[in-house]
Formats: sequence, C-alpha cells, structure tokens
Amino acid sequence: MKKIGIVGSTGYAGQQLVFLLNNHKDVIIDFLVSNSYAYKNYNEVYKSYNNILDQKCIDMKKAKNKLDDVDLIFTAMPHSKSLDLVKKAVDKGVKVIDIGSDYRLKEKELYKIWYGFEHRYPQLLEKSVYSIPELVLKDKIRKTSIIANPGCYPTATLLSLVPLLKEKIIDFKSIIVDAKSGVTGAGRKTSLNSLFCECNESMKAYSITNHRHTPEIEQFLSDATKEDINISFNPHLIPINRGILVTCYGKLSSNFSEDYIRNIYKSTYENCKFIRILDDLPEIKWVKNSNFCDIGFKVDKRTGNIIIVACIDNLMKGAAGQAVQNMNIIFDFNESEGLSYIPSFP
Amino acid sequence: MKKIGIVGSTGYAGQQLVFLLNNHKDVIIDFLVSNSYAYKNYNEVYKSYNNILDQKCIDMKKAKNKLDDVDLIFTAMPHSKSLDLVKKAVDKGVKVIDIGSDYRLKEKELYKIWYGFEHRYPQLLEKSVYSIPELVLKDKIRKTSIIANPGCYPTATLLSLVPLLKEKIIDFKSIIVDAKSGVTGAGRKTSLNSLFCECNESMKAYSITNHRHTPEIEQFLSDATKEDINISFNPHLIPINRGILVTCYGKLSSNFSEDYIRNIYKSTYENCKFIRILDDLPEIKWVKNSNFCDIGFKVDKRTGNIIIVACIDNLMKGAAGQAVQNMNIIFDFNESEGLSYIPSFP
Amino acid sequence: MKKIGIVGSTGYAGQQLVFLLNNHKDVIIDFLVSNSYAYKNYNEVYKSYNNILDQKCIDMKKAKNKLDDVDLIFTAMPHSKSLDLVKKAVDKGVKVIDIGSDYRLKEKELYKIWYGFEHRYPQLLEKSVYSIPELVLKDKIRKTSIIANPGCYPTATLLSLVPLLKEKIIDFKSIIVDAKSGVTGAGRKTSLNSLFCECNESMKAYSITNHRHTPEIEQFLSDATKEDINISFNPHLIPINRGILVTCYGKLSSNFSEDYIRNIYKSTYENCKFIRILDDLPEIKWVKNSNFCDIGFKVDKRTGNIIIVACIDNLMKGAAGQAVQNMNIIFDFNESEGLSYIPSFP
Amino acid sequence: MKKIGIVGSTGYAGQQLVFLLNNHKDVIIDFLVSNSYAYKNYNEVYKSYNNILDQKCIDMKKAKNKLDDVDLIFTAMPHSKSLDLVKKAVDKGVKVIDIGSDYRLKEKELYKIWYGFEHRYPQLLEKSVYSIPELVLKDKIRKTSIIANPGCYPTATLLSLVPLLKEKIIDFKSIIVDAKSGVTGAGRKTSLNSLFCECNESMKAYSITNHRHTPEIEQFLSDATKEDINISFNPHLIPINRGILVTCYGKLSSNFSEDYIRNIYKSTYENCKFIRILDDLPEIKWVKNSNFCDIGFKVDKRTGNIIIVACIDNLMKGAAGQAVQNMNIIFDFNESEGLSYIPSFP
Repeated sequence: MKKIGIVGSTGYAGQQLVFLLNNHKDVIIDFLVSNSYAYKNYNEVYKSYNNILDQKCIDMKKAKNKLDDVDLIFTAMPHSKSLDLVKKAVDKGVKVIDIGSDYRLKEKELYKIWYGFEHRYPQLLEKSVYSIPELVLKDKIRKTSIIANPGCYPTATLLSLVPLLKEKIIDFKSIIVDAKSGVTGAGRKTSLNSLFCECNESMKAYSITNHRHTPEIEQFLSDATKEDINISFNPHLIPINRGILVTCYGKLSSNFSEDYIRNIYKSTYENCKFIRILDDLPEIKWVKNSNFCDIGFKVDKRTGNIIIVACIDNLMKGAAGQAVQNMNIIFDFNESEGLSYIPSFP
Repeated sequence: MKKIGIVGSTGYAGQQLVFLLNNHKDVIIDFLVSNSYAYKNYNEVYKSYNNILDQKCIDMKKAKNKLDDVDLIFTAMPHSKSLDLVKKAVDKGVKVIDIGSDYRLKEKELYKIWYGFEHRYPQLLEKSVYSIPELVLKDKIRKTSIIANPGCYPTATLLSLVPLLKEKIIDFKSIIVDAKSGVTGAGRKTSLNSLFCECNESMKAYSITNHRHTPEIEQFLSDATKEDINISFNPHLIPINRGILVTCYGKLSSNFSEDYIRNIYKSTYENCKFIRILDDLPEIKWVKNSNFCDIGFKVDKRTGNIIIVACIDNLMKGAAGQAVQNMNIIFDFNESEGLSYIPSFP
Repeated sequence: MKKIGIVGSTGYAGQQLVFLLNNHKDVIIDFLVSNSYAYKNYNEVYKSYNNILDQKCIDMKKAKNKLDDVDLIFTAMPHSKSLDLVKKAVDKGVKVIDIGSDYRLKEKELYKIWYGFEHRYPQLLEKSVYSIPELVLKDKIRKTSIIANPGCYPTATLLSLVPLLKEKIIDFKSIIVDAKSGVTGAGRKTSLNSLFCECNESMKAYSITNHRHTPEIEQFLSDATKEDINISFNPHLIPINRGILVTCYGKLSSNFSEDYIRNIYKSTYENCKFIRILDDLPEIKWVKNSNFCDIGFKVDKRTGNIIIVACIDNLMKGAAGQAVQNMNIIFDFNESEGLSYIPSFP
Repeated sequence: MKKIGIVGSTGYAGQQLVFLLNNHKDVIIDFLVSNSYAYKNYNEVYKSYNNILDQKCIDMKKAKNKLDDVDLIFTAMPHSKSLDLVKKAVDKGVKVIDIGSDYRLKEKELYKIWYGFEHRYPQLLEKSVYSIPELVLKDKIRKTSIIANPGCYPTATLLSLVPLLKEKIIDFKSIIVDAKSGVTGAGRKTSLNSLFCECNESMKAYSITNHRHTPEIEQFLSDATKEDINISFNPHLIPINRGILVTCYGKLSSNFSEDYIRNIYKSTYENCKFIRILDDLPEIKWVKNSNFCDIGFKVDKRTGNIIIVACIDNLMKGAAGQAVQNMNIIFDFNESEGLSYIPSFP
C-alpha cells in the first residue's frame, strides 16, 4: 500500500485525482493540500464526498513537514507555485508527479518566454520525464524522480500526431491543430470569463499563436522525429464541463491509403488499453469520465490533407487519469489499475 | 456468479444498467435485448463501450427462448411492452426487476385510468413488491418474484416524505411536490420536444395534475400511513442530461424544530448508505452519476411550512442504480455492491 | 426627446436597459455610469455594441454633476449603493426608476430585517410607487418621482396571483411559490457559485425561507387584498442564461371551473399587451428576449389546488423591460414603445 | 409595400424569416407555407407569436396558386423540394430568394456529386446570383430573378477569405477551414443526433471531406481569384442553439504585417454595416440574434500562418438575415432595413 499526498487538491484536476485515488485499491491518500481551503474538510469543498471522504485539507507549509510520510506526491498547482516543495520532495526521495507545467519544458529559457518566470531548479528539468505512457519507454517512467504530466491539449495532440510523424506520413511543416476544450480547462478560479452566462451559448478562440501548451508539443514532436518542428496550435473554449476535441491537419507526404494509416495507429497502440482507434470519428460524449483517448481520421483526396480527430476527458486522460497511469507504472501496479472507467453517457 | 438478461438495454435507463452490471463483480450479462437495435453490437449503439463490451443485441422473441439461461431479468421497456415476457419469466422461476411501470400499481383499474391499457396479469400485480430498499422490509424483496422498481420522481419524493408522514410531522392533506427532471427522463426516443434546441435555454412544466407517477406515490404514502393520501405532483423539465430535484411542501402539524425533524430522518436512514441527510440543501451536481439521494430541508416559521429538497440521479437511484440495489438484496450480495460510485463532478 | 442617464449600466440588467433605450425612438442616453468600468468605452465592456454605441462610462461622482442634463435616471445598483444619488435626483426634480431594491418596501424596518441596512431616506419610501404597470393605476405612475421597479420573481408571481386573490379564488393562507431563474439573475459579479462548471448540469434551491423578494410580494398582495398575507417563496437556480418560470400553488376557496378562472385573468389583463393568458402552460423559450409574461394554469380536482405557471424574461419584463414600460407611462409615450420584441427562439 | 410569401416557414430558418419580415416596415407577409404544419395557425407552431401573428400555414399546392399575389418568395426547403415552385415563380416574374441550396452551384453535375439528385432546371442555375451582398455587385442582385442565398458556413468563410485571397495575401493552396456550428444548423427535424442528451456536453466533427457547403465555397473563391481553388472544409457541432465560429488557416504568401492585412479588410468592408473588423478575436455571444459578421485574425510569425476567426448567427447573417438583406437590395430599400438588431447578450 503506497501513501500519497495531493498538493492542489481542491482545483478541478486535484478533485479528479482525489476521486481516482480514493477508489484505487493500492494507495492511501495521506494528505490533501489546499491553499484556498486549508483546514476545511474536503467534503465541505466538494459535497459529493459526503459520507465518502472525511479528511481536512492542510496548507503548503504543513505539507512540507509531511513529506516523510508519503511515497509520492501529486502536484496540481498554478505554474511556479510548487517549485520549492517539489525540490524538497525530490531531495527526500519522494516521487513527484506534477500535473502542472513546471517540469514539462527541458530548456529553462522557455519558461521565461512562455510562462514569464525564472525557473529556479533547472537541474530538475533535466531529471524530469515528460510522460504520455503510450509514447514513452516505461523504464524511463519507473526510474525518474519527477514525472512531468503532459497538458490536456498536448496529450490529445501528441497521441494523434506522433505515430504519423514518426513514420513520415505527414509533412512536418504543415501541421495545424485546432483544439476545443470544455470550461474545466480554465480551472476553478473565479473570473469573469468563466461565468456561466459568459460561456454558455457562445464559443471563442483564445491564446491564438501564444498558448503555453505549444512549446511542450513542439518539444516532444521534435524529439520524436529528430526534426525541428513548429506547429500552429489554436485553442477554443466550448460550453461544456469536460472534454477536449482536437482536430489536427497535415499534408500527406505521399498518397497513403486510410488502411495503411490505420495500421500504423493500430500497431503503435497495440497494447494500449486506453487508446481506441476508430473507423469513424470520435465524439466527446463517448470518452467523458474515462481515461480513453479516441482517435479517428479521414484522408481528403481532393486536397491531399489528413484530418485527425481525437477526444479525451481533459480531467482524466488529460490530467488526473494520466497521472494515475504514470503512478501505476512507477509503482509497478497494473497500468490500468483504478482507471477502468466506462465513459459515462449521457 | 449470477446470470442476467437486460430487456430494453438500449434506452438511457437500459444503458445505465449495462454500465452498472458490466462493472458488477458477482454477475454476468447473458443477453441484451433491444427492439430498435436487434442484431447490432452494443458498442455500435453506445460507442462508449468500444473495447469494453462486445456483445450483440437480440430481439424480444429470442429473449423468450433464453430465459432458461438466466437467474434474473431486468425489464426497462415502455409500459405494457414486456407484460408477456415477464409472465413467462415468472412462470419459469426467473426473478424479474421491472424498471418500467407495469407492476407498480396494485389495482388493475389504475392502469386503465392512468396508463390507458388493460393489464392482462392482475395476479402478478399482487405478487410484485414496489421496492425502495430503504423503505421496504428486505425480506419482502428477497422473497418476491417481481420487483416493481419505483419511478425516478417517486423515489426522490417518497424518500423525502415517508419518514415525516409516518411520524405525523406533516399534515397529509397539504402535500405539494414541485419536481424537476433532466431530459434523460424522457428517454432516447426521437421527438420534437426532446430536441436540443427545444429544451436548451428553456424550462417548462408538463403533465400537471395527471403525471403517471402520481398514483404510485399516493399508493405508497397511503400504505405507509394508513391514510388516504392525495398529493399535488407537478413535474418540470430542465435543460440538463441527468438529475432530479424535488421540492416537497407540507404544513407542519405542530411546531417542530429542525433538529427534531433531522433526527427523524437520521434515525430512519441510519444504516442506509445511499441516503445522505444534509445540514443545508442538496444540489444535483453532488449526486450525479451516483446512487445517492441527498435530502435537506428548512422549516419556515413564518408560514408553518416545511420545505424538503431531495436530489438524485434519475438514471441511478431513480432507475438502474436502485434496480441493482434491489438485485443485490435478492441475491444476498452486499447491498451496495457495484454501486459505490463517487458522484462525478464537474 | 427625453434625456436619460443609466446608473449601473454594465451589469446584466443595466446592459438590457442600454439595449432597449438605444433602440427607443423617443429617448437619448445622455450618460452611462459604471463603477467597475468607469472611463472605458461601453463597447469594450460589451463588444456586441461595436459600431452601435460609442460612449464612455462615467463614475458615480461625475454622474452627480450631470443630473441637470437629464429628465430621468435608471438606477440598477446593488442595494443601498445609489441612495444618495437618488435623493439628489429627486431633489432636482429628475425622475427616478430604480431597478434595484431600495424603494420597494414601504417600511424602513423591513430593510433592516431583510437587507441588513439602515435606510437613510424613509421619506422617499413613502413617495415611491412600486409599479407593475398592469396592476397599478397609471396615474400614480405618472405622478411619482420614484418608481420602485419590482424584482423579477415578484413580477411573475404577482401577475399570477393578484387577479385570483382579489377575486378570492384562492385561500390566501395556502400560497406556495416555487420559482426558478436563469443565472443572469445572479448578476455579472464573479463568484464561485456563478461559474459555468458550478451551474451547468446542475440545479439547486437557494435562500429558502429568507429570499429578499418575499417581503415585496407579501406587501403588494396584502395591499391588494386588505389581508395580512404571508407566502412561502422558494427560488431555484437553473442552468440557462435568461428566464424565470414560477409555479404558484394555492387551495381553491370553492369549486371554480377553469373557464371561470380564465375569464378573471382575461378581464384583468384585457388591455395589457404584454400579458398573454394561455390555454396551456407557458415555457421560457416562448418569452425569451421579450417583455411578455405568459400565464397558464390547471385546476387539480383531486386535491382542490390550482397550479399557476408564469414565464418571463428576467432581464426584460423582470427588470429593464418593465422599467422602460414604466418610463413610457411617465412620459406619456405609447406604453409599449420600444418594447415590441417578438420572443427570440431558438 | 411589397407582398411576400415564405415557403418552408416552420423550420428554424423559416421562423427567423417570419421574425424579421413581421418586423420589416416595407413588406407584408402574404402567405406562410409549411408541409408539416399546413392548416395550423403559425402561433400554435411557434407560441412565441401568440398575440403577434395570427395566420394559418398553407400547403405547397395552395402556394402555387397564390404566386400571383406576391412580389417575392423566400424558399427555405430541403434540397430539391421547391424546384418546381421556384420555376413557376420565375415564369410568373415573381422574385425568388432561395435559402436552400438548389441554386447555389452553377454546374448541374455538382448537384449529382454533392447532393445526389438530378437538377431539372439547369437554365435557372445560370440565372441565379449567389449573393453575399458585401462581396457581390449590387446591380447583379437587383437584376436577377433568383437569389441563391449562401449557406451559413460559406458566408462566414467567404467573408473571411475573399479579401485576402483577392489580394494574394494567402497561398490559395494552403487553406483549411475548421468550422463550428450550433445545433439549429441541423434544422428542426426530429433525429437521434439532434436530441438534447446526444448533443449536450459533447462535440463532434461531421461530414469531414464531404460537407455540401464545400463546392459553393470553392466555386466562389475560384471565381473571385480566377484560380482553381480546393479547400479543406471541416465542420463540427457544438452544444449551443445559434451561432457559427469559423477558424480559417492559410499560409501567408509573404511577410505581411497585421496592420497591412487589417487595412485590406477595412477597405474591402468600408461601407458594410454588418461586417465588423475587430482588433482582437470574435466570440459568438457578441453577434447572437444579429446580422453582424465579426472578423478578427492573428499572424503567427513562428509558422508563417494567418489564423482568421469569424462569427455569425447562423440563422441571421447565415440564413434569414442575409436573405432579407438581399431582398432590401432587390427592392431598393435601405440595405439594413429591418436588420438593425443589437446582438442580444446574455
């Protein structure tokens, strides 16, 4: 039985971690950290946990003194807020899975450019493993002290693109990603833009040309292909709670058939329980509340483009679900332990 | 390991049954019946089941020949459509849990008045047990051959009212129920009224004074109190997928304190894992995708009324969840086996 | 051409006023006041006004110096925030229509009890006219210096109940109102409870037994009937932008037919363009973005209750629309001038 | 005063026409045709019209005999259903504005390929004018007997692309359009895919590589540029009632600045009241219920792409609004007569 701490447990992604870990047969939640709700019972913050979880949140300071009690911490904080805690954890030999963005980029300078802060622990950037388990060697995951859990958009995007880019199916200079996310993607902080009446019955593009998930996608694609890849990444907000749909466009490098391409996907993800390669196109409703990534595609013979569509639940495969999957690998549990949720529809 | 058949498996309530039973450790789904999708694979109808369930639906006729293979069938059909099948199952000693309305009313005549059809098996009406497990003797549930699984509205309403009516806290002539349901309550059939653009951004009352759930509520309340109770039951449609909120109004028979009333609820539901008596008022979001019924109330001293609010997920505690709970009792499984879902929020 | 100032112009109700007055042929908007967005162009706050309205918001202080420029001000501020400005306006002979709640209650003490503040200008409470134009003598509206524009819930509730209570159709001690509102009712301020993911796919009751609209409903009903009326008023939040549906319950004082009751409604509202008495029950979608109040009802012979359902757009007939209607009467314009909007569906 | 007939008046686009024409000061609605609701009063089909419009629908046959009574008919029917009626109208000198797709494509063969039917009146295809008024010579609109009113997606797409393609800002071989539409786009017919619970909380791509709006976009772009343009057009369904957001991608042909490009847009649409060129990106909520097309864009220096985002209300500028705009030109009314609606938010 492994003992776990969750730092940033009262955000939407944090709550999803609590949900999953509370149901996980091989772990115990030792502490829940929340700056906003420190000292409050978790079931007052999320009343869904009434009669289920009876545990008080602690604050960041107290968490630092509890690191010795746990085998692993999940951090789900705004960028740069858990840097010191993570350093301390690593020094103590506590494994870290960071759902935030603090360890995703390998180059310190990129943090200045894209996030606007000076990263104090560049040596940890070197150590961290950016892990979509289906695209990374399990052994690297097991051995690292810090998992950089990928962003929601990058997860759906990379699972769609990497198999085809590796096989040089797509011209790597032609990639455009049009991504759509539900409102949980913006977190639980109060802001005018997240109000019901401001989101409902509307849709918008945002952070066009400068969304912070861009460099981690490019970094991974470049690593995987040994090319210097730039993509056009374009997120949109849609009025649903959960779910991401990404539509990826690329120019086919040759006249490949759909069967040929489907085989590449199928062989890449052969033993990957959470990746479903469809004959048609995916819809968010078929993955909601699950850890699945559904992928479908069409070849457009008229234009020579391929259009790949992938759907995930942003809080599951896009955040907490993938984090638990990474934890399962680290601890040599069954990779899908605590993650075999049937998508809940309707 | 018990073997199960599901009749009406491709409606929304049927799907929820499949969801629950597929995850239930003590049962196996032997057959899935669907008139609309006979011979189709279940995972083509609900693509969420891709890689999870690989089973073809059969039609009603074939189901009749498969009754010997199973220990229990769930029926989730429009009224009167499974009468003959259920008769045959009972004759063969196969247990039946009917999520439909065919066995809820004890008096044959009420079917003519409220449903407009002639019930062909009045002797089965006598045998059937109308079962909200928290309000019925477990032994009756275990011994019956037919469980009449209560309607969604009646479940929330009766769980709210029965404890107080039994203790004569409320004047039984004063009861008004204002009920609100999500659109899954209307089922998966195509109709103008269930179109997205007809429901979204709107709300309406419907079936005022003549909703078919009225007689089963009145029958149960009258039985429980030995009074002849009529209630005013008033349903409304709200633009959400799942969930019911009922607001029950009654005149207090005396000047009871909130504490006194809360104690009645707490002692009635003392060992009932799925009933949560709150200090404040419930919200649908805290019970979604779970089998909980959350109940809260306020005494209005100015008017002498009590206002009780209860929330359930209409497809879970209001249909499939409660049906599985009944099955667990019938088979002497743990009552909450396969039902311990944390409400999924957001 | 009358000149108008709008104080609190950037809230949702304020915006609806701007919308209506900008289209109104007999008035000019002289100034727009907003504390949150002072000095910003209105079309930056609401980008819908791009190319339509090019006017900067001013702050409260500046507004005080501009009172001489206008014939009438609308105030749409949180309670007690515009007390001094209104006093000054009245002293200068500028007409005031207050969409807020500062002049609705006649008794100073009620402000302490229900709103928790000491009203500094009780003499203005005496002067003010609480005006639903269909239920008040036009002459009183014309002559007053302050219109207290009724709340959204009270408008739908009073239009439903007053005709029947005046005719003693309903036992005045039996009234229960179950009210449901869209999220614009909570205003545009940022708060956790108004976030998209907190409202969407959920519903809740709130302010049960103590909602601030209760005393104004009771005051008006008591005045209209010369009885001392207490009602049970119970609001709920539903996940839509605009719209209110109220379901009013009462015990019939005698065995009245639906036709008889319909005639009372029809004769009460005979020349009232904005009140539509339906043969069936109303739905929010048929009044959205219009100034209509749709009313339908059913007599329940089994229980002796009448169930009245009314729908309005809370920002129109429930706020800005009614305010403009009051203004039209004050200035002797056609009462429906600038208000003849067909409900916009879908 | 011109007299108008509306054929297909009870679909969502038809209703929007009724809405607009009922408010239009220079026309009278002479007849309303509906196959589904023939002989029913329009205000029973859309109860929003209670007290506003008291007119019975007629059927198609009767409409043929009433052509002599009107100056112009709008047709808003499924493809090929009004071919004969339109022929007859043209023969009688009655102007036609077809909101359907029967006259949009110039080549008869394209109807076979994209729509699967044989067009019986190819000579009318030659006569018809495909008219987005901002992109077409007014004189052509005035003189034609048939206006082919563009589809919703093509309107937003062409208004975004034509100015830049004409000026050779974008490589015409690189165009990708990722389009998103609300559910009214699917019309008011009952189908499983349009049910509330099937659309709500989900999103999907559909008709990828073969959507019927593709050829009309390509035809217009090719005409405008004298190039043979193929585009990749990719529609998605989002859970809102009204509104379209299109995101258009193209490779810049040279290193143009945002200012340079903005000037092209501004000069193209200089006197176009309904086109708003923004400094930032548009959102659906700022155009809902209006005839505006809001356009914004970003140059992505890292990739050399331009990303153009445009929003319209699909029932207004994307259908009925544009149709009325075309009618205004035909009859030499003010082009914005009856169309000056402020977008309704929230």
